Amino acid sequence: MMKPFLDKNFFLNNKTAEKLYHEYAADMPIYDYHCHLNPHQILEDKCFENLGEAWLDGDHYKWRAMRANGVEEAYITGTKATWEEKFYKWAETAPATLRNPLYHWTHLELQRYFGIDELLSPKTAKSIFEKASGMLQSDSYSTRNLLKKMNVAMVYTSDDPLDDLLVHQRISELGDFDITVKPTFRPDKAINLSSRTAWKLYIKKLEELSCMEIYSMASLVEALDMRHCYFHDKGCRLADHGVTYLMPVEMTPEELDQVFVKAFTEQPITAYERCQFEAAMLFELAQINHKRGWVQQFHVGAFRDTNKYMMQVFGADAGCDSIADYQQGPGLVSLLGGLAGAKALTKTILYNLNPADNELFASMVGNYQGGGEPGKIQWGAAWWFLDQQDGIRDQVNALSRFGLLSCFVGMLTDSRSFLSFPRHEYFRRILCNLIGTDIENGELPNDMELIGSLVKNVCYRNADRYF
Amino acid sequence: MMKPFLDKNFFLNNKTAEKLYHEYAADMPIYDYHCHLNPHQILEDKCFENLGEAWLDGDHYKWRAMRANGVEEAYITGTKATWEEKFYKWAETAPATLRNPLYHWTHLELQRYFGIDELLSPKTAKSIFEKASGMLQSDSYSTRNLLKKMNVAMVYTSDDPLDDLLVHQRISELGDFDITVKPTFRPDKAINLSSRTAWKLYIKKLEELSCMEIYSMASLVEALDMRHCYFHDKGCRLADHGVTYLMPVEMTPEELDQVFVKAFTEQPITAYERCQFEAAMLFELAQINHKRGWVQQFHVGAFRDTNKYMMQVFGADAGCDSIADYQQGPGLVSLLGGLAGAKALTKTILYNLNPADNELFASMVGNYQGGGEPGKIQWGAAWWFLDQQDGIRDQVNALSRFGLLSCFVGMLTDSRSFLSFPRHEYFRRILCNLIGTDIENGELPNDMELIGSLVKNVCYRNADRYF
Amino acid sequence: MMKPFLDKNFFLNNKTAEKLYHEYAADMPIYDYHCHLNPHQILEDKCFENLGEAWLDGDHYKWRAMRANGVEEAYITGTKATWEEKFYKWAETAPATLRNPLYHWTHLELQRYFGIDELLSPKTAKSIFEKASGMLQSDSYSTRNLLKKMNVAMVYTSDDPLDDLLVHQRISELGDFDITVKPTFRPDKAINLSSRTAWKLYIKKLEELSCMEIYSMASLVEALDMRHCYFHDKGCRLADHGVTYLMPVEMTPEELDQVFVKAFTEQPITAYERCQFEAAMLFELAQINHKRGWVQQFHVGAFRDTNKYMMQVFGADAGCDSIADYQQGPGLVSLLGGLAGAKALTKTILYNLNPADNELFASMVGNYQGGGEPGKIQWGAAWWFLDQQDGIRDQVNALSRFGLLSCFVGMLTDSRSFLSFPRHEYFRRILCNLIGTDIENGELPNDMELIGSLVKNVCYRNADRYF
Repeated sequence: MMKPFLDKNFFLNNKTAEKLYHEYAADMPIYDYHCHLNPHQILEDKCFENLGEAWLDGDHYKWRAMRANGVEEAYITGTKATWEEKFYKWAETAPATLRNPLYHWTHLELQRYFGIDELLSPKTAKSIFEKASGMLQSDSYSTRNLLKKMNVAMVYTSDDPLDDLLVHQRISELGDFDITVKPTFRPDKAINLSSRTAWKLYIKKLEELSCMEIYSMASLVEALDMRHCYFHDKGCRLADHGVTYLMPVEMTPEELDQVFVKAFTEQPITAYERCQFEAAMLFELAQINHKRGWVQQFHVGAFRDTNKYMMQVFGADAGCDSIADYQQGPGLVSLLGGLAGAKALTKTILYNLNPADNELFASMVGNYQGGGEPGKIQWGAAWWFLDQQDGIRDQVNALSRFGLLSCFVGMLTDSRSFLSFPRHEYFRRILCNLIGTDIENGELPNDMELIGSLVKNVCYRNADRYF
Repeated sequence: MMKPFLDKNFFLNNKTAEKLYHEYAADMPIYDYHCHLNPHQILEDKCFENLGEAWLDGDHYKWRAMRANGVEEAYITGTKATWEEKFYKWAETAPATLRNPLYHWTHLELQRYFGIDELLSPKTAKSIFEKASGMLQSDSYSTRNLLKKMNVAMVYTSDDPLDDLLVHQRISELGDFDITVKPTFRPDKAINLSSRTAWKLYIKKLEELSCMEIYSMASLVEALDMRHCYFHDKGCRLADHGVTYLMPVEMTPEELDQVFVKAFTEQPITAYERCQFEAAMLFELAQINHKRGWVQQFHVGAFRDTNKYMMQVFGADAGCDSIADYQQGPGLVSLLGGLAGAKALTKTILYNLNPADNELFASMVGNYQGGGEPGKIQWGAAWWFLDQQDGIRDQVNALSRFGLLSCFVGMLTDSRSFLSFPRHEYFRRILCNLIGTDIENGELPNDMELIGSLVKNVCYRNADRYF
Repeated sequence: MMKPFLDKNFFLNNKTAEKLYHEYAADMPIYDYHCHLNPHQILEDKCFENLGEAWLDGDHYKWRAMRANGVEEAYITGTKATWEEKFYKWAETAPATLRNPLYHWTHLELQRYFGIDELLSPKTAKSIFEKASGMLQSDSYSTRNLLKKMNVAMVYTSDDPLDDLLVHQRISELGDFDITVKPTFRPDKAINLSSRTAWKLYIKKLEELSCMEIYSMASLVEALDMRHCYFHDKGCRLADHGVTYLMPVEMTPEELDQVFVKAFTEQPITAYERCQFEAAMLFELAQINHKRGWVQQFHVGAFRDTNKYMMQVFGADAGCDSIADYQQGPGLVSLLGGLAGAKALTKTILYNLNPADNELFASMVGNYQGGGEPGKIQWGAAWWFLDQQDGIRDQVNALSRFGLLSCFVGMLTDSRSFLSFPRHEYFRRILCNLIGTDIENGELPNDMELIGSLVKNVCYRNADRYF
């Protein structure tokens, strides 16, 4: 029997899946342990001007779809077109995204935030724009209220070590807002030598802030350790490291220091030297993460800013990033095996971006479990390009076959948008459908207490315990 | 309820899928934008001697299956056995191909071209051979009539730059034949240094034809540009480039010219030098493709002629090619990112042969979209080993999740055989089943106008607009 | 309609699948052509002390799950805890393995060997432990009787070239035991230079046993050839080679001999030299395998002993191995293509551990088929981490699409445990479900004679013919 599009049993293809989702998953709070929300917008409790701004400001997913559909760049990243004009171009593109997650997300967001059941298209664009924009301008659609509407309990933002975290502190002091907003220590800019100018500028700022001279790898580590300590004092307990290609460290400390000096004095360095320096710094930072008992995350394997034309006319982060195919295994063994050998491996989440690496990562984490901590090493949720139905399904299945789904800390949004929280619902529906189908097929016992508990753990409680 | 084998609803597992296929897909003409049909056989309107010749002459797929099933080489590529003898060996092998696409293709072709519903086996071999061979010998089964029977509208052959394209011209002048047969410029032999003797011979011929001396990379580019121009004048607008391993270009122009000289003077060159030369030449050829506003294709990642014994006794193209596992990402970024930076990136189709690279390619094309052309950069259809049900499903799904299915230019045969056009039907049935299942599950709206139009676009109209 | 957990139609989701399994697959004997059973335990007809010993002694799968679930190492590999204490920790972990193959295997083994239908959990742990342990202590649960209970016809163990094979000989002379137990020649230790101390010790023992001095690659090959001959005389016809990274051989024989000398005289060698030596030795050993008409196996792509801490406190084989991501294609082409060119390619089975390489391997074997032997080159069954429902399904499907399922030699246990034979049932159910579903969907003809025969061949008869 045909199901209506995106109804209450969306993605739930049997009675057990429905029951698992509606009775166990749906009401769990959201623990969003990795996102890119702007904490200033939370503190000021911003209201968006209209649905164009709320949806299109910084959303690479939609930008890429619009480009692929032939929309002129003026209506994507252009500075002259209005949000309303851009929104209409998005409305033209939406029907071209059938089978893309954007089609589901768009309509889930219209339903969940605005109660709009219509499909977005040029025909409905104007009425949807006006209705949703009107709501967004009201206080009950301020950023904080958008979070409350979605039953969010916890948000971890992504923060630079140079940040003073005052915004986070002020948010924590708000009287009427009991969603916890915590920072994440993300020191990528301090170790990424791909743009030398940007790196030197960064080191200079770090020197100023830490009141010390940075002239070697060791002094760079020391300065970052001071910022790490500062973040720790402000309540931070989570680090995040983005790395394109995780190589095994093969250079000696002396050779690595020469790379530092070369980078600092603007001498040419090779791609190999750059990767070696980054990997060596990650090993140092991981020891600091261990020293203070934090959780650390590694996001590996993205090509970034690959389009030279867009770099010239727009700059970085234009939506020209994609999945890379570097060999990550030996670097993971070197990093994690080395940390284990040094008794310096803290709780760790590994995220891969290329699903061809799913089984590599799913089995790799099993090598480093232990010490009596359940799920100490996690294979992270389907991320970025992978947080769609196939990506989520494949990650949950591979995790199930190679490890313990029951210990999984679950989904995150990784999003810049206050409207993207239905992605947790998306994940939960897929999860419940997989498990429910297994029960119906006799592949899992029909024990709703046991399995309902697993669902609640993966949706919320594991993350709440882990972090 | 059990479905009969290969009936009219083959691969269509619900009512919506059936409706999409029969009402929208089935009657669309075929736009076969990449194949290896021999244009001479079209011009002369050849009739095949029998089903053995029509099926087994040059069909690596069947050769490989026969070898795997223990058939002696004498009955595969041997020159003494008759087509009829070889056919009987194929008939013995056919029942051993259950679950292989050959089993479906064989019986689809028997049904569609010859109205034969029997299953091929040693028992039925003789009667099938006689019936089909008799039909093939009649005028209504000539090559042109085989194409007409399948509702083919357009065929692009694969042609060497040395070709004078007179055959294509004569085909276009045929009075009673309105299927367009266009050439494709495929200059692989001019840049492939893996067999030095073959390459030097090729360069010599190119020199003669272009009346110029070729003594450097630049002069080789110039000579190819002249042939490109010749092809353009004859109406060609499509290039194709086969490359095993697409490396980023790291050598300087001077170093590359030294590789040219070394190759030309029969000095040894390394695999690295060979790949660098090939990648650098591709960058040059891509600029020529852009200059004349062509569409360009890149087919990457095949190991070719891997069996030294078969190379000794048979030569190249014995069916000993397979899927390779080279790292293709950095080379793609270098090529496409560099072309974009030089404002010299024309419409491009990228094909991968290793499905482990599906998501790499599916996301990569998104980095280079833009300029207001819908679907400018395409991730090509499942190719060669991948044009079977899982390969097609995985390509269509990954394309859907990472890009816009609605802009896809769809299927091709990549075939040497005049009997292989049911592969378009194969693709269309899989496509309609995926989409129809989504509708039935409430994952797509039940809007047959919207989605029927998408189906027609992917089956034919997108390709017709794109090329 | 909901199916009960793990009932007689487990994994069989339609009537045709049920029929194929129950009428064709279920009663076929088991031909286990690759396992790690201890032949001494067969000869002495050992009875296990209890279910703890039978299940947890050496079972890395369970160890990894227990670590991931937070069990202290004392209860995993610790020497002080009793088997009963360890069993209770496993019983705590079992419910946390929902969706992991361990959950199915655990309950399949309880059902098939012990007639226990209960689910393992802390609540049922004591009664299950007592009931099963009581049975294990009885003669009818001795190792030989465990094999008989599962209808095992043939077992190939994994044996070191230094072994005298007397245990195998004595087993073959047992009066009341007609299961054939044959050795496999596995010379990994002779060519693995990753631990120099272990290697030198091994070479010393090999020198003693073969009464010759080993001072070069050639003399090492000669000594191994003598052991190969010894194994041949004892009836061995099967070799197995484990290799992490199969590189193409690029060094000259002289350079390789220098690697041998460096390794022997404790001078440092690089990872590259180590891999070159290993690949070159494999080429030599493969020629010996061909000379005596054996079947050879290559198991490629595992990271081993990756956790430096566990290496320090426990040593090798602690369950800290996982899937690697080395580029295997060029090495396979070099090895197999070279052997084919030398007319020295014997029957060969290739196993990959990373499922991202499935299609690489599935298509690679097709390059080397021929000579009139059906299925001469095999793509081996889903192995180690992959012998779960998704791994098996993906291997069977890729094999079907790229080669001939009908020639497949089928499943193996690769296990150290006498209780793991239901994994053959696991495989057969998945196989029958895939094929049965195809028939129900009209993708295969409903010809039970033809397809039932294929099922019997894959389950048993192909292996019986092949080895």
